[in-house]
Amino acid sequence: MIKVGIIGATGYAGSELVRLLTSHPQAEITCLTSQSYAGKKYAEVYESYRHIPYICEEEDIEKMAEQCDVIFLALPHGVASKKVSESVLSKCKVIDLGADFRLSDLDTYEKWYTTHYSKDILPEAVYGLCEINREKIRGRRIVANPGCYTTCSILSMYPLVKEGMVELSSIIIDAKSGATGAGRSLSLPNHYCELNESVKAYKIASHRHTPEIEEQLSKAAGEEVIISFTPHLIPMDRGILATCYATLKDSYTYEDIRAAYEKHYGGEYFIRLTKEGTFPETKWVKGSNFVDIGFTVDKRTGRVIVIGALDNLFKGAAGQAVQNMNILFDIDEKTGLDYVPIFPA
Amino acid sequence: MIKVGIIGATGYAGSELVRLLTSHPQAEITCLTSQSYAGKKYAEVYESYRHIPYICEEEDIEKMAEQCDVIFLALPHGVASKKVSESVLSKCKVIDLGADFRLSDLDTYEKWYTTHYSKDILPEAVYGLCEINREKIRGRRIVANPGCYTTCSILSMYPLVKEGMVELSSIIIDAKSGATGAGRSLSLPNHYCELNESVKAYKIASHRHTPEIEEQLSKAAGEEVIISFTPHLIPMDRGILATCYATLKDSYTYEDIRAAYEKHYGGEYFIRLTKEGTFPETKWVKGSNFVDIGFTVDKRTGRVIVIGALDNLFKGAAGQAVQNMNILFDIDEKTGLDYVPIFPA
Amino acid sequence: MIKVGIIGATGYAGSELVRLLTSHPQAEITCLTSQSYAGKKYAEVYESYRHIPYICEEEDIEKMAEQCDVIFLALPHGVASKKVSESVLSKCKVIDLGADFRLSDLDTYEKWYTTHYSKDILPEAVYGLCEINREKIRGRRIVANPGCYTTCSILSMYPLVKEGMVELSSIIIDAKSGATGAGRSLSLPNHYCELNESVKAYKIASHRHTPEIEEQLSKAAGEEVIISFTPHLIPMDRGILATCYATLKDSYTYEDIRAAYEKHYGGEYFIRLTKEGTFPETKWVKGSNFVDIGFTVDKRTGRVIVIGALDNLFKGAAGQAVQNMNILFDIDEKTGLDYVPIFPA
Amino acid sequence: MIKVGIIGATGYAGSELVRLLTSHPQAEITCLTSQSYAGKKYAEVYESYRHIPYICEEEDIEKMAEQCDVIFLALPHGVASKKVSESVLSKCKVIDLGADFRLSDLDTYEKWYTTHYSKDILPEAVYGLCEINREKIRGRRIVANPGCYTTCSILSMYPLVKEGMVELSSIIIDAKSGATGAGRSLSLPNHYCELNESVKAYKIASHRHTPEIEEQLSKAAGEEVIISFTPHLIPMDRGILATCYATLKDSYTYEDIRAAYEKHYGGEYFIRLTKEGTFPETKWVKGSNFVDIGFTVDKRTGRVIVIGALDNLFKGAAGQAVQNMNILFDIDEKTGLDYVPIFPA
Repeated sequence: MIKVGIIGATGYAGSELVRLLTSHPQAEITCLTSQSYAGKKYAEVYESYRHIPYICEEEDIEKMAEQCDVIFLALPHGVASKKVSESVLSKCKVIDLGADFRLSDLDTYEKWYTTHYSKDILPEAVYGLCEINREKIRGRRIVANPGCYTTCSILSMYPLVKEGMVELSSIIIDAKSGATGAGRSLSLPNHYCELNESVKAYKIASHRHTPEIEEQLSKAAGEEVIISFTPHLIPMDRGILATCYATLKDSYTYEDIRAAYEKHYGGEYFIRLTKEGTFPETKWVKGSNFVDIGFTVDKRTGRVIVIGALDNLFKGAAGQAVQNMNILFDIDEKTGLDYVPIFPA
Repeated sequence: MIKVGIIGATGYAGSELVRLLTSHPQAEITCLTSQSYAGKKYAEVYESYRHIPYICEEEDIEKMAEQCDVIFLALPHGVASKKVSESVLSKCKVIDLGADFRLSDLDTYEKWYTTHYSKDILPEAVYGLCEINREKIRGRRIVANPGCYTTCSILSMYPLVKEGMVELSSIIIDAKSGATGAGRSLSLPNHYCELNESVKAYKIASHRHTPEIEEQLSKAAGEEVIISFTPHLIPMDRGILATCYATLKDSYTYEDIRAAYEKHYGGEYFIRLTKEGTFPETKWVKGSNFVDIGFTVDKRTGRVIVIGALDNLFKGAAGQAVQNMNILFDIDEKTGLDYVPIFPA
Repeated sequence: MIKVGIIGATGYAGSELVRLLTSHPQAEITCLTSQSYAGKKYAEVYESYRHIPYICEEEDIEKMAEQCDVIFLALPHGVASKKVSESVLSKCKVIDLGADFRLSDLDTYEKWYTTHYSKDILPEAVYGLCEINREKIRGRRIVANPGCYTTCSILSMYPLVKEGMVELSSIIIDAKSGATGAGRSLSLPNHYCELNESVKAYKIASHRHTPEIEEQLSKAAGEEVIISFTPHLIPMDRGILATCYATLKDSYTYEDIRAAYEKHYGGEYFIRLTKEGTFPETKWVKGSNFVDIGFTVDKRTGRVIVIGALDNLFKGAAGQAVQNMNILFDIDEKTGLDYVPIFPA
Repeated sequence: MIKVGIIGATGYAGSELVRLLTSHPQAEITCLTSQSYAGKKYAEVYESYRHIPYICEEEDIEKMAEQCDVIFLALPHGVASKKVSESVLSKCKVIDLGADFRLSDLDTYEKWYTTHYSKDILPEAVYGLCEINREKIRGRRIVANPGCYTTCSILSMYPLVKEGMVELSSIIIDAKSGATGAGRSLSLPNHYCELNESVKAYKIASHRHTPEIEEQLSKAAGEEVIISFTPHLIPMDRGILATCYATLKDSYTYEDIRAAYEKHYGGEYFIRLTKEGTFPETKWVKGSNFVDIGFTVDKRTGRVIVIGALDNLFKGAAGQAVQNMNILFDIDEKTGLDYVPIFPA
């Protein structure tokens, strides 16, 4: 059994990790920590756990590194980079669900986020977008688990960018997320009566997932990609839908586009292409690790419109983190992740 | 592997059965049928199944009985009683998720429902409320899976009624259900904009789950029990909350009440008693087979108030049906059912 | 024009008052105050007011009393009783939306709430349940505006209690409220993802609206009434539904019951009795001052079941407060309140 | 008093018209008709009307034209063009809430919709986007009330297109709508459990509001405009948010953009520009005739992002129709429409 530690287990992403790992047949939770709830029963923080006597412990990453095979970090940005050290990595694997190790360009990180405290370790981290970087992930000591919006956005656009089928300067991603994406911390915009029955855009032209998408699409393109990215908040718990627009470089048909997606994703279990004329809805992937992708060619405007959907806490966070763990420990990538979406829910 | 057939697989309860059985380690779906969608891919009916190529077949129960070890029926009332026959039961087990075999009193059935077409088989059916009737279920050929409201209501009140602690004529159950309880058939009251952002009672003093609750509580009490039962529709997908009121026969304390619940449910994995001062919320059991129960003694009025919560499609329908299958086939009752509730969702 | 001051204008009840009074043809807002937002534009607190330049002022009730004809208080309990004084009342009318002047029994108030700081003024206050106390309200200096649950509960049961048709000890009120009832203050239970898609009971057998309902029903009955009252939280913004149970003293028919309601409410514009077989839904009264009431006789149990519905911010708070103002200033009671419910919304 | 007839009063747009006109101080409903519910009380179709005894009548437009000063049509496309005739227009004004008279280009109409049956009358119709076409509307006999998506989209982009500040070929509008936009007719996608807790795009690159937006923006630009328009369905009752992207023709600043909006909308009561850094949310305009518009310049990409919000049943349908009536009858444009948004709701 893989011995697992979770630091920051009481946020929504952390709790989803606890849920998935509790049922994982080849892993067991050795230790879970929480700054806010240390000493409390986990079931008092999440009453869904009434039947399991987890206790929230004080964090001591060095000690955990000795007891665990892998440590998951689910922390605010800027905190993880202070915790990971050579000493920790020499003893166990680290999978970071936060942003600190996602951007390989240090300047970009410090411009969009804050000071980075593990500059020496940063080059070693691999961007854990499993379907794209699977082979690079194997054998690594530290994996940067991608963001929710970014997983959905990059996977939606990757084949077109990789195959050079779209004008790179034309990419616009209009994304919609459920409220769990904003976490469990209290704030007026996430107060029930303020968010319910409403839709809004936020962090327009300034959301921190923008450079993450750009860096990965740039790598795929072999040249710099600058995009417009607009996140929206939707009155629902889970789900991200990314509606992506790009101008086609040539008069490609639906079949041309489909061929590119089949080429890259044809063998991917967790990516499901919708059939022509059908498009993803977030409800069809809820509670699962699937990413559904559909697309159409708009001949009137010469654009391709691609729509991707995933569950932001599952494939967009904890599910992909477990998928990365499965890759790191050389077990079947689907282990503990092969949930049929729960519908309706 | 237990070979399973599902008749009526395209309603919400049927689809939840398909979901649970798809992941069940000791069962496999041999055949699933649908009157409305025969010949279609199941993934066209529920796009959550894009990755699994189930086909909806025409129903032929006699043929299915030969191919399957157990057949689940998820049909409108009055239909199942026409399909089940001695011939079928001689070849395989039957678990009926509908109402046709739940009431042992034929007159009560025909008064609240319709003509019964399997009067000869009715006496053989066992009421599949697993925690209460486990031993009676073993070895049976046909199990009547309880209703969603009834599972929640009976389990909430059973210990108090069985132990003779409440005035039987004083029982009032005010129940609240999510919209999946009304099924997938189109109707104005279930049109999104009509149901959303509203709450209402319906079938007041006339809901068909009333006699089912009464028959079971009467058996527990050893005398006739007549209750008030009022269902309400809540703007959410899943979940039932039953708020139960009864006058105490004596000046019982919280501890007295708790002792009764511990006596009957102390060893039950799927029943979780909340601690004193905490009460169930439907969200804490969503996507699981758990029933959470809490209670308080109101000294001012001499009443006990008991609150039970479950997921109506899971423990209230498909989950309990699978639990009955596990009992019938003598495998661990939790097999394929040990889901941690999904939260938030 | 009636000159109006509002103290505590930035809570949900306060903001509904601002909304209704902004459109009231015979009133004008002279001053609105907020402890949290003093000095800010009201439109920064509620962006629905982008077109109206209200400013949140510091509270100075003595000064306001000189400038205004009436002051509305929308404050936490225990605060209003500190602010109201003989000096204030000598200059202007006061309508308190909080609990401080609702209970005429001081001991009951201090048992369920906190110390009362205006014991001398308390006897002068009238309970502003307009349809019942209209004549007592006229000419008063201070009106205690009823609570949301209580308005719905009392109006639902009043005719039966007043006419002596039910066993007083048998009354049970199972109430359901939207989330605006919990106000705008941040708390984990009101965080979107915690409240959404769930239902729960809270403050079971201990909610502070209980003694308020009891005091008013006792006055109607001419003897002490003790009830069970259980509030529930529903995932929606607005609306209260009260499901009321009581044992009938005699074998009354539906027509007998209806006659009692017609006797007391036949001439009331804001109370709408549903026709037989139809029951209230909160969505049908949203955005209006109406209370819809329906009922049925359950011959099996000898109980009457009464269901009332209102909009908790409108008739349950600000609307009734304006109705009280209209009575105090001898203008048509419907002035500024005759909204058709907004549907669907 | 303006005598009003409403044909098609029982759809959601029709019912919103009934609501607004019931409270309109200078109009009275003389007749309302319904194909589905003729002969029934309107309160049986919408129980919000329990207090008003409207009756649904059989439609006879010629007779109505004699009794009414204005007739509103709220009908499926293709039906209105069969009903409007010279005879009707010679007797009364017509305001059509459907699509039949919105496109001045007949070929475009017949390509996107169906055969047009009033080709002779079409040239006379004016596009009733009040803030843009106010002067053209005065004195007309027939007004085509704009669509919900189109009102939001056109008003959001008009100043930039009119002032020639954006590349016309770059315009992308990603729109989000609440479920009332789909109407009251039953369909699986609008079944509560299917739509709730999910987000999806639909009619991608093929929605019929596309040519309507294009025709109006083309008129503003003085040359042909082709856009991408993608509608999305949001789990809420009311509201449309349009997120609009366009490439700037020059390095305009926020102030430059703002000046264009102030120039065109500075005097418009029902258009509210948000302050810099703040963006519209649908909840802030719910239940009102306001359109809120905000924007930002994204220097990284050279794009302007404009966000508009309105209530689709109010300004997006019935409210604007009443605004058109007010213009036609030369009364204050705000009459009967000056609602403060209802919040939270």
